[in-house]
Amino acid sequence: MARTPFAAMLPLFLLLAALCATASAASHPHPLDPLSPAEITAVRSAVLASPLIPARPLTFHYVGLDEPDKPDVLAHAAARHSATRRRTVVEPNNALPRRAFVIARAGRASHELRVDVTDASSPSVLSHAVHAAGHGFPTLTLEEQFDAVALPPKHASFVDSVRRRGVAMDDVLCAVFPVGWFGGAGTKRVAKMLCFVAGGTANFYARPIEGVTMVVDLDEMAIVEYRDRVRDPVPKAEGTDYRARKAGAPLAGPEPPPGVVVQPEGSGVHIDGNVVRHVLILYLLLLLRFSLFFLSTPHSIWWANWEFHVGFDMRAGTVISLASVLDPDSGARRRVLYRGFVSEVFVPYMDPVEEWYYRTFLDAGEYGLGLWAFPLQPGADCPSNAAYLDGYYAGQDGKPVHNENMICVFERYAGDVAWRHTEAGFPGQLITEVRPDVTLVVRMVVSAGNYDYILDWEFKTSGSIRFVVSLTGLLEVKGAPYTHADQIKADAHGTLVAENTLAIYHDHYVTYHLDLDVDGTTNSFVKNFITAKRNSGNPTTGGAPTPRRSYWTVRREVAETEADGRVDIDSKPADLLFVNPGKKTRMGNEAGYRLVPSGATAASVLAADDFPQRRASYSRTQVWVTPYNRSEKWAPGVYADQSAGEDGLAVWSARNRRIRNEDIVLWYTLGLHHIPYQEDFPVMPTLSGAFELRPSNFFERNPILRARAPSDGAHSQNCSCSVR
Amino acid sequence: MARTPFAAMLPLFLLLAALCATASAASHPHPLDPLSPAEITAVRSAVLASPLIPARPLTFHYVGLDEPDKPDVLAHAAARHSATRRRTVVEPNNALPRRAFVIARAGRASHELRVDVTDASSPSVLSHAVHAAGHGFPTLTLEEQFDAVALPPKHASFVDSVRRRGVAMDDVLCAVFPVGWFGGAGTKRVAKMLCFVAGGTANFYARPIEGVTMVVDLDEMAIVEYRDRVRDPVPKAEGTDYRARKAGAPLAGPEPPPGVVVQPEGSGVHIDGNVVRHVLILYLLLLLRFSLFFLSTPHSIWWANWEFHVGFDMRAGTVISLASVLDPDSGARRRVLYRGFVSEVFVPYMDPVEEWYYRTFLDAGEYGLGLWAFPLQPGADCPSNAAYLDGYYAGQDGKPVHNENMICVFERYAGDVAWRHTEAGFPGQLITEVRPDVTLVVRMVVSAGNYDYILDWEFKTSGSIRFVVSLTGLLEVKGAPYTHADQIKADAHGTLVAENTLAIYHDHYVTYHLDLDVDGTTNSFVKNFITAKRNSGNPTTGGAPTPRRSYWTVRREVAETEADGRVDIDSKPADLLFVNPGKKTRMGNEAGYRLVPSGATAASVLAADDFPQRRASYSRTQVWVTPYNRSEKWAPGVYADQSAGEDGLAVWSARNRRIRNEDIVLWYTLGLHHIPYQEDFPVMPTLSGAFELRPSNFFERNPILRARAPSDGAHSQNCSCSVR
Repeated sequence: MARTPFAAMLPLFLLLAALCATASAASHPHPLDPLSPAEITAVRSAVLASPLIPARPLTFHYVGLDEPDKPDVLAHAAARHSATRRRTVVEPNNALPRRAFVIARAGRASHELRVDVTDASSPSVLSHAVHAAGHGFPTLTLEEQFDAVALPPKHASFVDSVRRRGVAMDDVLCAVFPVGWFGGAGTKRVAKMLCFVAGGTANFYARPIEGVTMVVDLDEMAIVEYRDRVRDPVPKAEGTDYRARKAGAPLAGPEPPPGVVVQPEGSGVHIDGNVVRHVLILYLLLLLRFSLFFLSTPHSIWWANWEFHVGFDMRAGTVISLASVLDPDSGARRRVLYRGFVSEVFVPYMDPVEEWYYRTFLDAGEYGLGLWAFPLQPGADCPSNAAYLDGYYAGQDGKPVHNENMICVFERYAGDVAWRHTEAGFPGQLITEVRPDVTLVVRMVVSAGNYDYILDWEFKTSGSIRFVVSLTGLLEVKGAPYTHADQIKADAHGTLVAENTLAIYHDHYVTYHLDLDVDGTTNSFVKNFITAKRNSGNPTTGGAPTPRRSYWTVRREVAETEADGRVDIDSKPADLLFVNPGKKTRMGNEAGYRLVPSGATAASVLAADDFPQRRASYSRTQVWVTPYNRSEKWAPGVYADQSAGEDGLAVWSARNRRIRNEDIVLWYTLGLHHIPYQEDFPVMPTLSGAFELRPSNFFERNPILRARAPSDGAHSQNCSCSVR
Repeated sequence: MARTPFAAMLPLFLLLAALCATASAASHPHPLDPLSPAEITAVRSAVLASPLIPARPLTFHYVGLDEPDKPDVLAHAAARHSATRRRTVVEPNNALPRRAFVIARAGRASHELRVDVTDASSPSVLSHAVHAAGHGFPTLTLEEQFDAVALPPKHASFVDSVRRRGVAMDDVLCAVFPVGWFGGAGTKRVAKMLCFVAGGTANFYARPIEGVTMVVDLDEMAIVEYRDRVRDPVPKAEGTDYRARKAGAPLAGPEPPPGVVVQPEGSGVHIDGNVVRHVLILYLLLLLRFSLFFLSTPHSIWWANWEFHVGFDMRAGTVISLASVLDPDSGARRRVLYRGFVSEVFVPYMDPVEEWYYRTFLDAGEYGLGLWAFPLQPGADCPSNAAYLDGYYAGQDGKPVHNENMICVFERYAGDVAWRHTEAGFPGQLITEVRPDVTLVVRMVVSAGNYDYILDWEFKTSGSIRFVVSLTGLLEVKGAPYTHADQIKADAHGTLVAENTLAIYHDHYVTYHLDLDVDGTTNSFVKNFITAKRNSGNPTTGGAPTPRRSYWTVRREVAETEADGRVDIDSKPADLLFVNPGKKTRMGNEAGYRLVPSGATAASVLAADDFPQRRASYSRTQVWVTPYNRSEKWAPGVYADQSAGEDGLAVWSARNRRIRNEDIVLWYTLGLHHIPYQEDFPVMPTLSGAFELRPSNFFERNPILRARAPSDGAHSQNCSCSVR
């Protein structure tokens, strides 16, 4: 009998031993790892236990990593890198503190706290401040939006409005919309609510109940204003659904056949070892339900000549840090990007009427991109060879929430070419060299209400990083009396996409914060202007004695201060580069990375004194450059909801600080003026805009010159699939 | 003994029967098929037999399809379409004439001929004219370039120049460069030749013999001018090669693993039946060497909801015709594009010095894009699931030349999303619908000397066509005395990319001729200007009584004449559309397709009076719209070599013809200002620019709304590869 318990216990002992090993590995996370569930729990405990904020209820609106100071992170990364190469674990005395930044609401005030969770079992509040001066409120929580939308069906005036429109209340669903700021004092944390007839379709937004303005005080959780101004028709449900079985019979015509990417030699993506090495333990732990507290989602990625760290933030979504590329000549890793993320998504609508004028969204600051990212669908959102990373965020009560499949990582085999040349100039021979292109995509999808933003970071072996934003999802539409465009006599501010359905004009501005560190932190911002010149034809005046009358040359301008860092890319042709003046190639050219736009270069045309434009004035031009400042993250400012433009990128930049030979940050905005068309309804075919950061004199020569040529047998491999 | 011959003959009888069946199928080609080898042979015979051009030698510089009149082609296409649906062969009395347009040189003149080859066994010359008025010469032949570059090694002055530079003549190779036009009479058909030290490297252009100007009279085939002006260093060979075994040791770091696209249900691409149905006969015929005369390369393609015809022209390369998309609602095929091709590639260099000022290439008109397309490498240029189409062109002697693998066609599985939405607004449920995107790529690569242009036409099931130009290949470099950028004191007109190697600044302008027929031939060109408005706040003046101060709306302008059709896309934000005013949706919106640029929107900054700019003045702005005219194909005019700008797109457009409610053509130019960087050397990583033609109120709603959702098992298929 004595032996049986022991025999039974042995696996458990082994399990516990492995668990401890895993836990100890997990207790030395990367300093930029997002807060783990255990850390989020610790933050909550510390905040709720603190005497600094006695008021209740206390709601958590933002909990994110308060990353260590940049010099410390860089030193740690350098040490970690050599440790990794030696296959050792970073020593505990190299570990950086783990801290959280928290914005909580309590007692009708916004509280900022810094919490130390280096030892998650005994966290401590390091600092506390109340956001007293200035406008604005933190990100709305999911829970308060759920609570708010439960109010209208119990609100007598709304019940009446619904009845008068001949709609069943059971079919009505509401959503919360930020009010923006239009010159008021902004002391109440209010929002508006819009309601839709959502029975009989999955298209939540297609059948709006127009003409109703409803203001909810989120702190009181009560409707404080109500107006039913005009009754427009509710568009019908027919034709609005997009679900497979509800959208109608499958297409009659032929569709493309399925295709699967097969990697005969396996995946080339290496994600740091926690999950990979301990798959069995993970399985067992899941059975024992320990996993959530002891294992973190792995976040360091190595692929081809790239390494980087991927994080997840409830406001920014994907955060890419410490992206470095291998130099084929020196064998050294060279930094390209310290930290990059989407800082804001500004979506102003263009109808000035009562029920639409305030729809001027700041989706990151008001809603949270990470909060509104939903699980990716394998085999649909990402191909079959993708790996997935989970995310955690703090709920309104401060407890960690687990979100599966937030980010996928996959190698893309699009059939593109990395470089090639065919040389026909050698008599009697044709020389051809081709290198196919394989890239790495890191993808997240944010479904912030009606729109879906597919946000891709694409790493190329050539050293480029390509950023792609793909728009899809649902339009915001307005109920209208029109059933044909000929009936429209005045400006309708939109396109009639279906009966009684106006899709309102709007813009999208997706702003990236990109702290480029081109081979080091001290960089400059250079504009290589394409400058037309006349050929004088006279050698004594610098001309050439030929009949050519003109040409262009490069006028190189180095930005001195932030005023020089604001660039309208469509104004004058120029190459825009981030360079390291202290790192020159053997030929003496400054190592750099240049910005190559690829569509979506719109800039806002709203009046400078218009309220939404004051709140997001950075949208007036695509490029801004600022000196690095750890507090300058969010383009409209920290408190985006009801912000008044007193903080944020345009305000910082107006300080006109020095950006030459400094640690500088690029803010790049992809912009789109969206005139809707019928094809965008009921759900929009993807429309993409992109830009590339491309090495330019960063390398001595083409960094993939010596890439392996495809083997002769590569295309004659015998590949097939059997359906399981 | 009698039986044996019969038994032996039976297979041959069967073969001949099948051969006749094949031949008769091939004798009803598509009216837009490129000339077959038999037809090219017939053209040659007719021209050489004609008494109209007695002078000899007679050289063929252009032989291409003289396509039937558009109304006849459209009628034929309609009849063919119903025949195809009924699975019958188009009756002979529906067949359109087969004609060729020829430009030949003889007696120091350029001769234009039209030749009828409807019956290839008895062709006839229909018309003949001599290009007497105006500048310019036809495309250079490959053969005369080969002949010309054999001259320098036998030219005493050049032998001396080479010796004085300490180079072995055996290592020297030359190439022919067009002289352009710089104000002269242009009566002699001359070109220049540049020579390079090409021993020890496959990089033909990396080691130029600078300072030498050599003029060759192509009609005399003799060097008529020679100047050795200055002796600059010849760059060394080391580091210039790009061949796999010559470029250096393979990359030390990890590279992406291989990936193969597997289509478990097979390919979805249908190419018209000639080859597919007669594979066995083709094999036998190849043995019998009949194939070249009796089988044509198939040219009609059906894929998903698209059908189109693909042709091959020695000047334009790929020609896409009669592209139509299936309307999911009506089940009808609707026309989008009548005929599209790359009309010209203008590449002006920016160094006004003697040896560089004239490098202002018109790659299509001077060299021929089809002539300089080389066989695609399977598994490298195109993925493993690609199909290939061959091309034929006429050599200088008029005989057909077979070029394998000119165009590839493949389904692309890039892991992109066609449309998606996640809806979180329904309490207690998360609705997610995702449709992965599969597209069809039609690709050709033109290696016109140093540069490689990867030219893609991408068809999307959403009804979009995406045009992508990817630049790669070799830079044109100039030998210089500099070994470090610090030594450069004056404008060097380029980047020092290696020792003694200046990569000269230049532009690329790739101009597309796109005869859009949006649901029919009568179209208009509409500009939807994004127009900022002030909200007066006063309902009596059209304002809304809200605090919103501004918004934008659409000011719609229909182009009346060609002056309205010239658009600088970066000047004022606007959606640019081709619409069919006679085809409206149920909602009353005009069916249209819009132009969505995606990078590469540069326009030429050369002076309007500068000679290269006069020859390609259309490069000053990206968009031109003209009324359809079958003779208006080539943007710089028919005779591009030494053209003086008297013909071509800018000249036609200046006639200011009506383009409203007309059959109109879009000319769109992708432009790039190229400041070279060290990464571009010795071979350039691909840089892409693109634009999209996107349905906009063409369909009643999203045309792929009812696309099949990916099956649950799609991503769990068990796929693997075994290496043969």
